[in-house]
Order: sequence, then C-alpha cells, then structure tokens
Amino acid sequence: MDLPPSPLARPFPEMPDIVGAVPRVARAGYKDWDRADLTYVELDEGTSVAGVFTQSACASSEVEMGREQVKQGRARALIVNAGNSNAFTGYRGREAVEQITAQVSSYLGCPADQVFVSSTGVIGVPLPQDKARAGVESALRAAECSWEEAALTIGTTDTFAKGATSSAMIGGQRVELAGIIKGSGMIAPDMATMLGYVFTDAAVAPAFLQQLLEAANKRSFSCITVDGDTSTSDTVLAFATGSAGNAPLASFGDKGADAFAAALDDICRQLAQLVVRDGEGARKFVEIRVGGAASDESARIIGLSVANSPLLKTAIAGQDANWGRVVMAVGKAGEPADRDRLSIGFGGHWCARGGQPLDDFDEAPIAEHLRGEEITIEIDMGLDEGRATVWTCDLTHGYIDINADYRS
Amino acid sequence: MDLPPSPLARPFPEMPDIVGAVPRVARAGYKDWDRADLTYVELDEGTSVAGVFTQSACASSEVEMGREQVKQGRARALIVNAGNSNAFTGYRGREAVEQITAQVSSYLGCPADQVFVSSTGVIGVPLPQDKARAGVESALRAAECSWEEAALTIGTTDTFAKGATSSAMIGGQRVELAGIIKGSGMIAPDMATMLGYVFTDAAVAPAFLQQLLEAANKRSFSCITVDGDTSTSDTVLAFATGSAGNAPLASFGDKGADAFAAALDDICRQLAQLVVRDGEGARKFVEIRVGGAASDESARIIGLSVANSPLLKTAIAGQDANWGRVVMAVGKAGEPADRDRLSIGFGGHWCARGGQPLDDFDEAPIAEHLRGEEITIEIDMGLDEGRATVWTCDLTHGYIDINADYRS
Repeated sequence: MDLPPSPLARPFPEMPDIVGAVPRVARAGYKDWDRADLTYVELDEGTSVAGVFTQSACASSEVEMGREQVKQGRARALIVNAGNSNAFTGYRGREAVEQITAQVSSYLGCPADQVFVSSTGVIGVPLPQDKARAGVESALRAAECSWEEAALTIGTTDTFAKGATSSAMIGGQRVELAGIIKGSGMIAPDMATMLGYVFTDAAVAPAFLQQLLEAANKRSFSCITVDGDTSTSDTVLAFATGSAGNAPLASFGDKGADAFAAALDDICRQLAQLVVRDGEGARKFVEIRVGGAASDESARIIGLSVANSPLLKTAIAGQDANWGRVVMAVGKAGEPADRDRLSIGFGGHWCARGGQPLDDFDEAPIAEHLRGEEITIEIDMGLDEGRATVWTCDLTHGYIDINADYRS
Repeated sequence: MDLPPSPLARPFPEMPDIVGAVPRVARAGYKDWDRADLTYVELDEGTSVAGVFTQSACASSEVEMGREQVKQGRARALIVNAGNSNAFTGYRGREAVEQITAQVSSYLGCPADQVFVSSTGVIGVPLPQDKARAGVESALRAAECSWEEAALTIGTTDTFAKGATSSAMIGGQRVELAGIIKGSGMIAPDMATMLGYVFTDAAVAPAFLQQLLEAANKRSFSCITVDGDTSTSDTVLAFATGSAGNAPLASFGDKGADAFAAALDDICRQLAQLVVRDGEGARKFVEIRVGGAASDESARIIGLSVANSPLLKTAIAGQDANWGRVVMAVGKAGEPADRDRLSIGFGGHWCARGGQPLDDFDEAPIAEHLRGEEITIEIDMGLDEGRATVWTCDLTHGYIDINADYRS
C-alpha cells in the first residue's frame, strides 16, 4: 500500500468477536516486500460456507476449486495469498493450491475440500510452492491477529484496510457479522481482484446461507463497478460458525431469517461500497438510482451501463452535469426504454423530464452538488416498477497513472 | 477543430468524381464559431440509398426517421448539421427535421422522405429552426465544394478531415467510391457521434445495397471502439447514383457484384479505422486479431471485450506487455473459451500458449513493438475456426482532458 489513502476512504470499524473464526497472518514473501502477505482464518468444526465467484471463463484454479468446494457446505480454514494471483498458470498453479489444502487439512485433521484458498496479485506466475509451504507453516503457528491486520494482509493495491460489521436478532439471540474485503479496481487481474469474506457466529444451514449470499450479492457486489473489467479471481465467501447458539436457520420460514438476511445484505453492501471508495484514482463516489424500469434486473443493467460509461465518469470527474451522456448510456444498455418517458436528475434536481430538457432548468444547485464528493444520479425510465441502485466512482487521471505502467 | 491533429492522423486522399453527387456547404451558425457547419449533398434522381444506424434505444429523431426512410430505397439529398445533435429534444426536435426535409424536397421537387438529415453536436437542445432554414437556403445556392471541405464541415471534435476511396470493375466498367466520416470518440453523444457517408457512381438496387452495407458494417464500423460508448445518432449511409452506367447490381449472381462488395468493404474499413485514428487522446492504433474462436461473431465479441477494456488500453498507453489483462478481457466476454487452450501474443510474438506463459518468453521484441504507434495483439482461442479483427486506440490522459469538462 504505497499509494496515499483514497480521499473517499472510511476508517476501519470496531469489529465484533466472531467466536469460532480466528485470523492469523504470516510472511510468505510472494513479492519482495516488507509485509505480511498470507492470511489464515481457522474455523470451528461445523462451520457452514457459501460462495459466489467470478463469471470469467478464464478463472483461476482457486476459483475452479472453490466453486466445487462450496457444494459440500462446510469449511475449516481460509488461506489468502497476496502478491500472486496464480491465475493462468495451468497445472502448476493447481498443484500449488492442492499443496496448501493438503498441508492445512493435515494440520487440522479435516477433509482437504474444507480448506478454501484465494490468491490475488500478478497473473501468469505459478504460486511458488516453497514460499507457500513456509508461509502456511508460519501462519498455522502465528498468534491471533485483529481483523484489521487480516484486512491489510489480503490487500494489494488497496490504499486502506476495508472492514464492515452488522448484526441481527434471531429468536432473542444476537448474532454478529464481520467482513473484510480487498479490491481497488473492478477488477484488475494483476493486483486488484475483489476478494471478500464475511464471518458470522450465527448458525445457518449451508444451502440457506448460499441462497442468502447469492441474493445479497445481486444487490451489492453485482451493483458496483470501477472500470467494467472483471477479474479471473473474484470471490466472496461467507462463513457461519454457529457459535452464537441460535436455532439454526434453514429457510425464510425460520424465526429471525429475515433479520439475518437483512444483516447479510447490509454488510455486503457496505463492503461493496468500500471497494468503490478505493477505486483506482477515484475522487468522487457516485450512486446511480434507477427507477421506473421494466424490471429490477433491467434497472440494474441500465444502472451499470451508466456506471461503466467512460464518458459519463470523466464528466463527473470534471464536475459537469452532462445529462446527455446519461441518455447515451441508458440508450446503449439494450434494455426496454422509451426516450420520450425518460427523466434524468443529479442530486435530487431534475434536468430532463419525459424526454425533454426542462425549460426552467436551473443548473446552479446541480453544479453545487457535483462539486461535492458524494454524487447521486437519478434516472426514471417512466415504464414500470423496476428499481436498482448501483455504485461507481469517477474516472480521473489517477486511474491512468496507476494502470498505465502497473506491471513494469 | 481546435485540438492539434491526432498523431495517428492520415492525409486526406485524392477523391474521385462521383457524377450525380454534388457537395455544398454553408454557415448555419449552430454554435458561435467561424466555420461552415451545414453540409448539403445533392443527388441525381434514381440514386439508391442504404443505411445502418445506432442500436440506441434513445436515438435522435434524425435516426428514427432515417430508419424508416431507407426502406423506400431512394435519395435525392443529404443534409448534415454540425454543432447540435438535436437528440433528446422531443417533438420540437422532430419538427426541426421535418422543416428541413420539407424545405429541401420543395426545392428539388421530390418526396420529403428522399431527403436524409443527420445532426451531431450538443444533446438536449432542439435544432434552432430559424438557423436551419437560413443555412439550408444558403447551402442550396452555394457553389460545389470539395469532399475534403464537406468532411471538415461535418466534423466537430475531429482533429483531421477523414476521407477514403475505393473502386471496382463491374462488367468492364470502372466504378468509384468516395467516403467521408466524422467521429473521434466511439461515440460521445455530445460532439463525437460517428456519421459516415459513402457515395458511388455504381448502379446498385437499393435492397442489394442495403444487404452489402449491413455486411460491410459488421466487419468495419461494428469492429471499432474508442471507449465502448454508443451515440444516440450514429449513422452510416451509402448512396449509389448509377451514373457509371454499369448493368445494375441486384444480387451476388450479377457480374461484378463480388468486386463491388469488396470495394464497399474496403472503404468502410478505411473509414472505420480513421475514426479510431482520431480517438480522443489516442497515441497508439491497436489491431486485435482473434482466431480459433467458436464462430466469427464470437471472435468479434471477444475482440471488442479486449478492445473495450480500460485496463488493457491504459497498459497499451504505458507500453506494457500486460497479457494478463488480455486473459481477463477474454474471460469476461461471455463467449466460449477454454483457459488451457488460450494463446496470446503482441506484434507476432507469443507470450503465452495453451494456457501457460512461455518458459522461454523473451519480452525484448515485444517491448520494442509496444514502443511503436501501430500495435497488434494476437489471440488464439484454440477452439475452432472463428476469426475477427477489431480496432481500437490506447486510453491516455488526453481522453480524460477532452472529456472531463467538454460541455462546460
């Protein structure tokens, strides 16, 4: 983390104890740097796991294996390597992951498929097996660390440690959720893969946890974009240790299931927004609210089309109320739209309604809004009830500085 | 055209005479500038027309009307307004276009739907009817001008006039094609809409001309991208006056049809590449060759996914052989891909083959290639016979400078 913290950074929160989930870090030395770069989280027996992964057709071995592993629903350990993504490394990359799962499962006396591995960093270089072995060995014996230390250790180009918390009441029993995430582009395969982990002491059946995580993902991690790029390694895992002692949740019929779902949604949204706040070169945080669309999914696609438009993002960087670029991005989304029903606003002030610029359009309050750090864009499609909110950041010279010669 | 010419600019070519197509320009004064901004091309009776238009769901009135007009197949005139796109202007925008078609058709004594209108420039401001009327009046009486003057007049943020030529033999008769185009982002709705026009003296039936233009468009204008954005006004029209006196072409069974199709392909590809060469802030011209894909269309989608990746485009700007970003962009395209068959190269040198970096990978010749202005990226999917070539430019600070405060 050599870059100065993003101006949109948030302080690391006070984290709750998640009994049954213990983080430790070690120095594997995957790069020539003076920092911990291997994170190990030990999980109590019986911990449920759920996961969502990149849609990339060129995913890493870690992702391929993780997709399979979540199906059996249990986890005893998480290992995160920072500095080398181990992606596009063929059989040698897979061997390196298998070595780690064998080493940790032998230590814990658990099946190998209960050990989850993520890696993030340079692509195309197989994870060095000797460094991984020594790093894991040292992590297994390390003292427990704070979640903030773990959050720093999973980071690469991140400019600040990212964590979030939430909680819920399940049948009179309070349960806690603690999450950490890394990622600062969305998402560079080199060094800015999005890796997110949520830990809770709630007791939740694996299949239900998977259902809730997929739903939360749709409203959080699937609603953010920094540059429209998708990593070969994106991963979000949720672990439920069950130590809170609540009656286990297995469906929405169970008491407290709604509350837990809301808490999971909440922490996922917080974590997702933190990634945007660390967007490479970001100077403004942009929330895009789409309403009146043909469906919620249609609204999300339209929102992301706007959020991914380099023209709009540069206009926001320039504090320019360029609503024409919003029209353009809505038009290219490929979703149902009627130009003559479309309305667009910034910061709660409409610029155009029903397909025409407002006659009495006063640009002053909008210009004032755009000078701030937190920007909202409102889009009313005027068609139906579909709604979605997505988040992005502006596109600045900083993005180009960071990415133009990253690898060299 | 206040910006210095793009370093990738090409000189305007010597243009052939297209008998039956006469360009004229005038000053409508759509903006407060000292230049011609209205182009009028008068076409002989019997001229065939074909057109392809933006897929935007928020298209301008000009595009909506043009889509209908090409169906009847004949054209007598083209009017191009520069400085105001007339997009997102509701009924007032449509009235302004109808006024122009009425004025020109009354002068020529032709049906109104044989007068084609395009507009490019600021969005959301209805085309001022008084300025349009006076400008058209003056253009109708102006002296014939050169195609270069017409190319300059249709331009907005373009940094150089763009033209191309080609020719074909049809049954012993030589036919000429002359084309002009404007556009420097792909495509800003503000001031960088892509508008392209091809004129030929060949005799071609409208339906066949439409078929050929659609096919050529797929291999040219649909294979370029500067920033992945799509204008509300993109238009390419082809006009065939028939003055060359060849036996009219109506199908591929006709003698010379293949040759004419090739000439049309050729001029469309030239024009498309000129738009990339004027990409906002472009310093490098990038050709991406995709082979071994599941189909040609799949190859085109993969190529555009790579061409649209801000991460890859900034890496090219930084002269960085970051083939990991190519893997990422291939993976996110959503097309059939097998990581372990994928090969990637730059400038004819492979970096990775069959899903793994080459052991004897020598970066020196690739680094040398990337220091040049004309970059090629080779992608072999290793699956089947699908092929496509797409073109883009690098993403530089210049792009952000141009777009961050364009409107203000």
